[in-house]
Amino acid sequence: MTPTSNSTAPDRPANVMTPPTAAEAAELDALYARMGAENMIPLWTEIGDLMPQTPRPAAVPHVWRWSTLLPIAEDAGRLVPVGRGGERRAIALANPGLGGRPYATPTLWAAIQYLGGHEVAPEHRHSQNAFRFVVEGEGVWTVVNGDPVAMRRGDFLLTPGWNFHGHHNETDAPMAWIDGLDIPFVHYTDTTFFEFGIDRVTDEATPPVSRSERLWAHPGLRPLSGLDDTVNSPIAAYRWEHTDAALAEQLALEDEGQPATVELGHAAVRFVNPTTGGDVMPTIRAEFHRLRPGASTATTREAASSVYQVFDGEGTVSLGGTEHRVGTGDMFVVPSWVPFTAQTDAGLDLFRFGDQPISERLGLARTHVQRP
Amino acid sequence: MTPTSNSTAPDRPANVMTPPTAAEAAELDALYARMGAENMIPLWTEIGDLMPQTPRPAAVPHVWRWSTLLPIAEDAGRLVPVGRGGERRAIALANPGLGGRPYATPTLWAAIQYLGGHEVAPEHRHSQNAFRFVVEGEGVWTVVNGDPVAMRRGDFLLTPGWNFHGHHNETDAPMAWIDGLDIPFVHYTDTTFFEFGIDRVTDEATPPVSRSERLWAHPGLRPLSGLDDTVNSPIAAYRWEHTDAALAEQLALEDEGQPATVELGHAAVRFVNPTTGGDVMPTIRAEFHRLRPGASTATTREAASSVYQVFDGEGTVSLGGTEHRVGTGDMFVVPSWVPFTAQTDAGLDLFRFGDQPISERLGLARTHVQRP
Amino acid sequence: MTPTSNSTAPDRPANVMTPPTAAEAAELDALYARMGAENMIPLWTEIGDLMPQTPRPAAVPHVWRWSTLLPIAEDAGRLVPVGRGGERRAIALANPGLGGRPYATPTLWAAIQYLGGHEVAPEHRHSQNAFRFVVEGEGVWTVVNGDPVAMRRGDFLLTPGWNFHGHHNETDAPMAWIDGLDIPFVHYTDTTFFEFGIDRVTDEATPPVSRSERLWAHPGLRPLSGLDDTVNSPIAAYRWEHTDAALAEQLALEDEGQPATVELGHAAVRFVNPTTGGDVMPTIRAEFHRLRPGASTATTREAASSVYQVFDGEGTVSLGGTEHRVGTGDMFVVPSWVPFTAQTDAGLDLFRFGDQPISERLGLARTHVQRP
Amino acid sequence: MTPTSNSTAPDRPANVMTPPTAAEAAELDALYARMGAENMIPLWTEIGDLMPQTPRPAAVPHVWRWSTLLPIAEDAGRLVPVGRGGERRAIALANPGLGGRPYATPTLWAAIQYLGGHEVAPEHRHSQNAFRFVVEGEGVWTVVNGDPVAMRRGDFLLTPGWNFHGHHNETDAPMAWIDGLDIPFVHYTDTTFFEFGIDRVTDEATPPVSRSERLWAHPGLRPLSGLDDTVNSPIAAYRWEHTDAALAEQLALEDEGQPATVELGHAAVRFVNPTTGGDVMPTIRAEFHRLRPGASTATTREAASSVYQVFDGEGTVSLGGTEHRVGTGDMFVVPSWVPFTAQTDAGLDLFRFGDQPISERLGLARTHVQRP
Repeated sequence: MTPTSNSTAPDRPANVMTPPTAAEAAELDALYARMGAENMIPLWTEIGDLMPQTPRPAAVPHVWRWSTLLPIAEDAGRLVPVGRGGERRAIALANPGLGGRPYATPTLWAAIQYLGGHEVAPEHRHSQNAFRFVVEGEGVWTVVNGDPVAMRRGDFLLTPGWNFHGHHNETDAPMAWIDGLDIPFVHYTDTTFFEFGIDRVTDEATPPVSRSERLWAHPGLRPLSGLDDTVNSPIAAYRWEHTDAALAEQLALEDEGQPATVELGHAAVRFVNPTTGGDVMPTIRAEFHRLRPGASTATTREAASSVYQVFDGEGTVSLGGTEHRVGTGDMFVVPSWVPFTAQTDAGLDLFRFGDQPISERLGLARTHVQRP
Repeated sequence: MTPTSNSTAPDRPANVMTPPTAAEAAELDALYARMGAENMIPLWTEIGDLMPQTPRPAAVPHVWRWSTLLPIAEDAGRLVPVGRGGERRAIALANPGLGGRPYATPTLWAAIQYLGGHEVAPEHRHSQNAFRFVVEGEGVWTVVNGDPVAMRRGDFLLTPGWNFHGHHNETDAPMAWIDGLDIPFVHYTDTTFFEFGIDRVTDEATPPVSRSERLWAHPGLRPLSGLDDTVNSPIAAYRWEHTDAALAEQLALEDEGQPATVELGHAAVRFVNPTTGGDVMPTIRAEFHRLRPGASTATTREAASSVYQVFDGEGTVSLGGTEHRVGTGDMFVVPSWVPFTAQTDAGLDLFRFGDQPISERLGLARTHVQRP
Repeated sequence: MTPTSNSTAPDRPANVMTPPTAAEAAELDALYARMGAENMIPLWTEIGDLMPQTPRPAAVPHVWRWSTLLPIAEDAGRLVPVGRGGERRAIALANPGLGGRPYATPTLWAAIQYLGGHEVAPEHRHSQNAFRFVVEGEGVWTVVNGDPVAMRRGDFLLTPGWNFHGHHNETDAPMAWIDGLDIPFVHYTDTTFFEFGIDRVTDEATPPVSRSERLWAHPGLRPLSGLDDTVNSPIAAYRWEHTDAALAEQLALEDEGQPATVELGHAAVRFVNPTTGGDVMPTIRAEFHRLRPGASTATTREAASSVYQVFDGEGTVSLGGTEHRVGTGDMFVVPSWVPFTAQTDAGLDLFRFGDQPISERLGLARTHVQRP
Repeated sequence: MTPTSNSTAPDRPANVMTPPTAAEAAELDALYARMGAENMIPLWTEIGDLMPQTPRPAAVPHVWRWSTLLPIAEDAGRLVPVGRGGERRAIALANPGLGGRPYATPTLWAAIQYLGGHEVAPEHRHSQNAFRFVVEGEGVWTVVNGDPVAMRRGDFLLTPGWNFHGHHNETDAPMAWIDGLDIPFVHYTDTTFFEFGIDRVTDEATPPVSRSERLWAHPGLRPLSGLDDTVNSPIAAYRWEHTDAALAEQLALEDEGQPATVELGHAAVRFVNPTTGGDVMPTIRAEFHRLRPGASTATTREAASSVYQVFDGEGTVSLGGTEHRVGTGDMFVVPSWVPFTAQTDAGLDLFRFGDQPISERLGLARTHVQRP
């Protein structure tokens, strides 16, 4: 805790001062030692790292291949039981810049979860907000506060903070999907609460749609039994049919010369809480983007971090200036302020989630968009 | 303007005072005359009427029969042209208590509008908020800011304040529907603005769904091209298929023992602005209620006024203690604080709109619900 | 209720139609008669009056002189008791355009209230929002929910909806002040509730400041015992010392070349609810304006109505193009969309209140400002 | 990055599974190695630490003595220049549990800043939100966006995110004060932006009150030139006179039997943004608490972290069950969910700031209060 050199960053002007004499240097070292002993640290030796002119995230851009993720999850399925204690057979993306923590970005957890045929992940609840996104397969139901929610390809499924939830696979075949949570943020802010539920799920029914959808997933309609606004969306499942239709309509409207897309050839929707029109959960934004064949996006920087999964198609993404070919199931991370561009010849469907609600609700959001 | 007697209402205690002598009475009369001459009026002669203990609306409960409304509209169709100047062939419900004004309630306009085969109601815009509700027929398109919106049975259609709009009938057959507006309120608050548009409609296309629906009517999904919240809903048409499905699901959930309805056998949805989850327009609430056969509602009083139209089925409504049999197309008014109950043997579908957002946004809302 | 002529307003284009034959005219008259009998009224005969291109308020600009108001109030003090039944010795300004109703504007009540030495106005409460503004005198306490609030020159005092309140004069001298309420609006919307309290006041103490001020009137400080936002301001009295200082500082800052005033020589503050920063009550805005000697305002039109009282100084106000000399105590009304300008050689302090929160909260606000 | 043991926490039930055979264990180790190589980490080995049943902050309760802080700051004043590069002579409290980072809590920076006679800390701005609190001394002006703000004992002073600010000491005597910022949070979320300003301050005037106060610090009054709500409070200085008066009034009201304090003998105010009534800055809450002689607080746990400074008096605080005697100038930290109680015989004035707005705005807030 005793700093002895000035770590001032290169983008900061030199502190214009006469070099200290040997006596002065010794006195300064003694002062720093005293500070260390008293749990004090000077700003002037730290400011370059602490307060750079623009974000210098420790997290780095990185791509994980579905062809790597899935076999490892399958092997874990053979070797590791699912059940009380470990709770879930989920394997997190660990950002190479974050020192071995199971964090995709400083705030976000992203994992592949795997449930074998007829397995059950027991119920629990926690203050962390969670969602699932399904890139392939079906046959698992997530039970959220007693409401069974079928999981199918393309669906975006919520288990917001403090809702009991478990998963059970009703088929002979395994199923894998993506989990997204704010575990790192909740851990960092020391706001975690966790409670165990029953060892199986509270309702083993397997309806095609959840009760939450039957009550809430009607466009522009709100049940009179649900007039109090809620912090989290009451919709447990955002179905692929609706997402796909919304994106297709935006591109069709663009073809008709109507304003509908965010930029040429780029359709996008945000998943929202119908009681407020805002993000589905207070810490996590989730969106779906579709690029038509031949389209490319502007280059964007955000003071926020995002995780993407390719849902369909293939293309090239540029992360901080480095290009990566990506295809179905591949996942990648865009840390704060890293320039991001996507381009595709064949068409590209991208699911993304991010921590934008955090910076927006706290007055820290900035975005920079550069169009070619 | 010279009041000479005390109009104190019966629910107010007598003003305990010695009766005035003749000289005093004369002096008082002279004072009142002076006040009148100076455009002044005392509170004490007015307070009983002005500030009763509970609302004493001038508007009265009243039922208009569809079997009366439609033939009159048809005759107007023969005799009165539609076009610039009169603007619309709309005939308003005039509450018998409101002194011959074309007002259904002090704040709300409700009318039957009629458009003959191939007629066009020219474009205009105004600060008044408007909607249409279709109890029968089809073949007319409302064009809202250039977006053609098909009108079909059961649809609820918006033309919010300051949006250009016109109507055109593409068929040989006439069509009639209900208009709801805040004309009386806007007139009362002197906030009216009006502008003429072109004499025909700006887009004569006849698509089955509007562009606004293609962009916005996807449950829980918000286009990234529409992230700014809007005062009015961006959805131009709330389709019957969705409303019907939402109500049917609530009753099915009730059958399964799940909380979903507002009370036993009574399903209900509110039409909302997807950018906020709130009412579709700042002055008008719109809802759809379904009573299953044999159901009845609690008795409700609201410090707000409502207009209902029976969409389907038949039943009995009690308005201030008087019962009325009502069937498809019939309309009725529930003034402020008048007790309202509905009951049905055969099943009853009710569309209602009201001025509840006014009292709620201004801190004046009160509701009293009495269950049997 | 049977309209026989077209009242289309001059700002509306003529309805281009062939003049009806005698037979057609007779048939039309018969139709109108049928409508009348069925409580129906056509839009096309009413639209010119109902929906003009800009507001055409029935209310007219008008000036009431303090030199007229006060003597009439004094005579009422001699002739009319104050007490249960009449409740208050208040005499309303009746706008000459509003047909003999005791309304300053369609939405607002403005009155002079007069309380003789040692008189008591008994306690009551009502859904109507009320305030007092004191142009001269002192010695009366308003007791709001048991909190005695001294009334002194320049003070702005709140008795928001549903707060019990009474007044008592602790001196030998009478006192007169201004009452402002939303009585017409609450009457119009049928949202009135009224309840009698005790015949005297609940606390006869006469402290110089109220408990509400001691708890709430500290700049930028909120008591931890009051963290729930309230619809109405919890501050019962906005004292003249603070208002005067705030205005003086704005002009001093302007003298120093700093942005502070709304326009050159024109300082202004709004009275606000410290729990939200918004208007003191949901239906009424209140402000204080100070013009330095030689200053004049821009010409403003608002889709809202206001009442002013000259607190000090003298000047000329232009209401809809007509100029009026005004001095201390004089009151005047600016109906919706009527152009308003003020100018002063000697300096002018103006208190104003208005119904702007109504149009703003309901999406109906418009303002037009014309600078010379 | 290759976990080899199960770190499940003691509050989590044992994962009931048959112990692996040697072959299985080897296979599992190989799988973990593969995961490590692919930047993947399993949840089941981490969940105990990541998601405990209640917060287990790494930060620990700690007390820093003013008698230690001030001499170290004085020595730094002799040995370390203030100026461009180091920017500020500020020495941070480094929580012993946070691994040598200059963080008082995971989210908050707290430091003592020291400015010698006639020294200048140059202007800069940054996305980090900052405030100053003065426990002793005077003679320095903070210049915020060109507005000189005098600093005096008891004052709470804001320099919100992206406002240029510098400090200059106009006296011969040094001055020390407390800085509070969200540096750790902004660093963690990678939302830092920083810009240098001029090397001196932009306005060297030394007025007793700032222009921001002259415009904004009037209770319940809002300038019409400032009607747009702002994310941060526009008040640059909350003066001790007002804070002291507000607290004294609460205790006086308590003496009169009126509700005013948060609990018996415990007065408290929150510093708020007058445009919204909410916290002064989006990430930082600031409050002042006064315990009268003999009073003690309830025991409180919050899912949020706080830093306190004793402003006056002395007493005993209990942090996680350990008692500490504290007196004027002493600072201490209460990490998330650590039980906190204060008690005093002589009377105790406490300034506190915390990150509560973060958990509240993000739906993660929890509080537990235990009264004796």
